[in-house]
Amino acid sequence: MTHSAIRELLKVTEQPGCISFAGGLPSPDAFPLDEVAEVTQRILRDSGTRALQYGPTEGYRPLRAWIAEHYAPPDVTLSAENVLITTGSQQGLDLLGKIFLDPGDVVGVESPTYLAALQAWTAYEVEFAPIPSDHNGMQTSRLNSVWSLSLKFIYCQPNFQNPTGVTLTLSRREKLVAATAQRGIPIIEDDPYHALRFDGEHLPTLLSLAGRRQGGDGYAGHVIALGTFSKILSPGIRVGWIIAPEAVIHKLTLAKQGVDLHTAMLNQMIAYEMAHTGLIEQHIPAIIQMYRERRDAMLAALATHFPASVRWTMPQGGMFVWVYLPEQVDAASLLETSLEEQPEGPGPVAFVPGGPFHTQGGANTLRLNFSHSDIPTIHEGISRLGLALKKHLAVPALS
Amino acid sequence: MTHSAIRELLKVTEQPGCISFAGGLPSPDAFPLDEVAEVTQRILRDSGTRALQYGPTEGYRPLRAWIAEHYAPPDVTLSAENVLITTGSQQGLDLLGKIFLDPGDVVGVESPTYLAALQAWTAYEVEFAPIPSDHNGMQTSRLNSVWSLSLKFIYCQPNFQNPTGVTLTLSRREKLVAATAQRGIPIIEDDPYHALRFDGEHLPTLLSLAGRRQGGDGYAGHVIALGTFSKILSPGIRVGWIIAPEAVIHKLTLAKQGVDLHTAMLNQMIAYEMAHTGLIEQHIPAIIQMYRERRDAMLAALATHFPASVRWTMPQGGMFVWVYLPEQVDAASLLETSLEEQPEGPGPVAFVPGGPFHTQGGANTLRLNFSHSDIPTIHEGISRLGLALKKHLAVPALS
Repeated sequence: MTHSAIRELLKVTEQPGCISFAGGLPSPDAFPLDEVAEVTQRILRDSGTRALQYGPTEGYRPLRAWIAEHYAPPDVTLSAENVLITTGSQQGLDLLGKIFLDPGDVVGVESPTYLAALQAWTAYEVEFAPIPSDHNGMQTSRLNSVWSLSLKFIYCQPNFQNPTGVTLTLSRREKLVAATAQRGIPIIEDDPYHALRFDGEHLPTLLSLAGRRQGGDGYAGHVIALGTFSKILSPGIRVGWIIAPEAVIHKLTLAKQGVDLHTAMLNQMIAYEMAHTGLIEQHIPAIIQMYRERRDAMLAALATHFPASVRWTMPQGGMFVWVYLPEQVDAASLLETSLEEQPEGPGPVAFVPGGPFHTQGGANTLRLNFSHSDIPTIHEGISRLGLALKKHLAVPALS
Repeated sequence: MTHSAIRELLKVTEQPGCISFAGGLPSPDAFPLDEVAEVTQRILRDSGTRALQYGPTEGYRPLRAWIAEHYAPPDVTLSAENVLITTGSQQGLDLLGKIFLDPGDVVGVESPTYLAALQAWTAYEVEFAPIPSDHNGMQTSRLNSVWSLSLKFIYCQPNFQNPTGVTLTLSRREKLVAATAQRGIPIIEDDPYHALRFDGEHLPTLLSLAGRRQGGDGYAGHVIALGTFSKILSPGIRVGWIIAPEAVIHKLTLAKQGVDLHTAMLNQMIAYEMAHTGLIEQHIPAIIQMYRERRDAMLAALATHFPASVRWTMPQGGMFVWVYLPEQVDAASLLETSLEEQPEGPGPVAFVPGGPFHTQGGANTLRLNFSHSDIPTIHEGISRLGLALKKHLAVPALS
């Protein structure tokens, strides 16, 4: 089944009665709505013409400076000149493709990986070198198989990855940074869920480890980092950023000029006001608590309703659980079953089949989002999916 | 002088005392700030979670429907499915490049043309076929010279073009539409200043003429139209649109998914509320009056302060006047002169040299923006520029 066919199929999730674990949406209850309304009013009152006027392509300077200060790891010195504001971090992926990638280039990716990264770079006619991952993230022991491909860069989501929810262990982070530094291969570190850790301690970012390796002397740019306000403030305002060496920021800025001139000023000013006043920081514990309870509910429901032949990941944060069905089960046809509305049936339930997150294979995997549904819905939805799965397993395959 | 060198030079315009006609900025006095503040507060209060959540890639449906209804010419039937919301109309240029252009393709452009269109499509490694223009816009009699180049499309700003300010006459519009229809070459009609006509009557758009030609039977898509809220509401919110056949919108949507997922929801909802309540429409006469007075002031100042050997355009709307210096004068070196701060001098004044708006030539032309400066500033700035010009003309060329 093609990605477009799956998109078509998932349109049914808009109908009432359908429970959807398909989207990658934050909970609307996680939006600090009153604070955003207040801050926005203040911006329009005090700096309205600035918020509505054209702005610099590089971004709103106070926001760039805040990000440089707030996201500089202990061993890396960053300034506003190292930060480009992007229209969501998705635009960061496209811009990096625009300046770095030519047809036929090879990009290393975790397998599975973020679908829209594949989509963004496929437009530049590149090849992907999949690096298998397990419950500890990218298997760095498998990197040897890709070195011969002269990779343009390696793309990695180290924390609570989309789609698998897994986190790259510290020792693998160190190996990845060392091995790529040795070979002069840049890493694109995409870390949208960074702040949403429910258990355990934060691990150092790849950016931080690269700085430490280098001896804390400035910022050599081995790791280019993507970040976003989408998961801690609002995805709908489309404000993200790229941290890169000045020379790369300069090229990205020229590319961004042709692409959308600049990111909306009002939105950047909202993000800045929410960030530098501490309003985002204050709000994060409430998001974490909500999502942790939802993740726990989903893991418990999976244990209750799914057959023993099915396995899944145990995410320490983020928004997704990843499910491995028995080898012979095709998740896309399970989706067809689970979306069928039957008179006496339990009602439809949706998820995203795992195939499209892979460059090849993965037909027996699927992604479940736990951040967007409340706990009763999670219980009901996973129960429905368990029934669909049992029904599906009971039908002998045609082939 | 390269475009980057000019950008560097123009950084000086940020210093106090410098008068700048360089930017393409609307007047901040043209922003309906109170109305935007009120509407934004209402959106965040009544539909806040929608405004802050991810939205569909195609755009906010009520806005798409409003644009389809409001911008459908008499002979063209449009629906929301014909509209993609873009992150400013600059993104429309990039997306059209992404889906239509391959390296080596040839794009027909007015000469001079909008700089950032050249920039957006240069990224796709295309060639440009310049079609000369005069005070009546693109010289359609010169189209014969480009047909042999198998153009991918022709790009045209028919109203108050950026940079020249000129308007394509009705008979040339008809010729352009007929000649391209006959050869199956699409037109990209970019019309950001449409509503800002100060004198005379609105001419039918190319979209409208193509529909009329076709006999008012639906929308065949010969003309793809770009529009924006930048000049009638706010450029800083980055909301524009593309009108195209459904099949093209579908391709553009897939491309946009990889590029920035969707345009900010809050911004689309602000545009929709301002548009469908008539608040934008009500506000336009005030913008027109302000800009008309500024244009008149600039034309009068040019007549007073510029030598007889200099000519300029008489824009019927928009934001720019275009100046032709004597053949031997290089506008980029005039800019160096006019930016020089001298102890007893009149102070620096900035403009954009015309070269970068051309694919070749144009060194003796320059663009002046009249929308962003008040009338006393326009008088003072043009007087300074007249002095710089006289000084420049007095120095014999080195060569």
